[in-house]
Amino acid sequence: MPRWEPDAQERLVQAALDLFVEQGYDNTTVAQIAERARLTKSSFFRHFPDKREVLFFGQDAFFRLPADAIIAAPSNATPLEAVAAALDALGTVFTPDRHPFASRRQAVIAANSELQEREALKRAGLASAMTEALRQRGVSEPAASLAAELGLLAFRTAFARWADPANRQEYSELARESLAQLQAANASLSSAPAG
Amino acid sequence: MPRWEPDAQERLVQAALDLFVEQGYDNTTVAQIAERARLTKSSFFRHFPDKREVLFFGQDAFFRLPADAIIAAPSNATPLEAVAAALDALGTVFTPDRHPFASRRQAVIAANSELQEREALKRAGLASAMTEALRQRGVSEPAASLAAELGLLAFRTAFARWADPANRQEYSELARESLAQLQAANASLSSAPAG
Repeated sequence: MPRWEPDAQERLVQAALDLFVEQGYDNTTVAQIAERARLTKSSFFRHFPDKREVLFFGQDAFFRLPADAIIAAPSNATPLEAVAAALDALGTVFTPDRHPFASRRQAVIAANSELQEREALKRAGLASAMTEALRQRGVSEPAASLAAELGLLAFRTAFARWADPANRQEYSELARESLAQLQAANASLSSAPAG
Repeated sequence: MPRWEPDAQERLVQAALDLFVEQGYDNTTVAQIAERARLTKSSFFRHFPDKREVLFFGQDAFFRLPADAIIAAPSNATPLEAVAAALDALGTVFTPDRHPFASRRQAVIAANSELQEREALKRAGLASAMTEALRQRGVSEPAASLAAELGLLAFRTAFARWADPANRQEYSELARESLAQLQAANASLSSAPAG
């Protein structure tokens, strides 16, 4: 068995997603994923700590992009403008060629609470990274946490709309729309209902 | 072995927390928890699906309280007033006699990413329940999601401050403070930094 495994991670991710779609996440073993990718089980564990993580490959790295964009935003940017730059930064990841993969992946996650759990933790990590970046810009608490949560909500909404199988809009456009809608909604939170 | 097990759940929770504090979460097995509680391993699994869940006993039920309070709020309450009522409702759970338990439990969760994962999922569930309750009041999207996330952030802040071992303030007071601080911070999100 050669130790040199070009694209081993990508092959394992693709094999895992194919199997999860075909036979379900719970019914798929790490051994089956490795076999489909023409690799060994120990090779799988060289690349991923567990079966869940295979669907979150690369996410820790690309979830750094929003925080970096917040730090790089102009010094006179408002907290929400910095968050808008953060959401925009993910446009380099959620490109049209990535759409079919993202859309199948979301369907698998939506069907499994273990995966939703991992996703919830990853997203909490994204919010923390954005909060920390906003603090570095001098935004005080709780404004930094609030701006980051608002950004996360805009991201979640935009990503869900983007990953929808029927969607043809670009991620960046959806992210800007979501953030604008949240800002407008924000003004209504202290208004009594019309009825 | 008698099948009648008075307070079995409570005993398992207490035994688990004691063992997690004494020897760490990872080093503790379900068999050890059951033994400490003078129960069998199969008895453990009659009450909890896995080792993690033992620290979240009852949470699904008391996370219904905020949603119920939102639905019961006066019809002319603003979304944020309904959220304030939701946070207040948890005051019946986070009573002073519960403080020592909560504070030890938080220390265990803070030291373990598996438990943080479960907590992140539970909190996402709380936000969803509050969002759904706000929608039932006629609050439209994305205002309902935003108000719920703001409420969740206020809850997380207030709960962390309440569960701190040194804290002597009541949960309800901390919750009201956190929400007021978030409302004030909200106004600053579109302001350019002073520097």
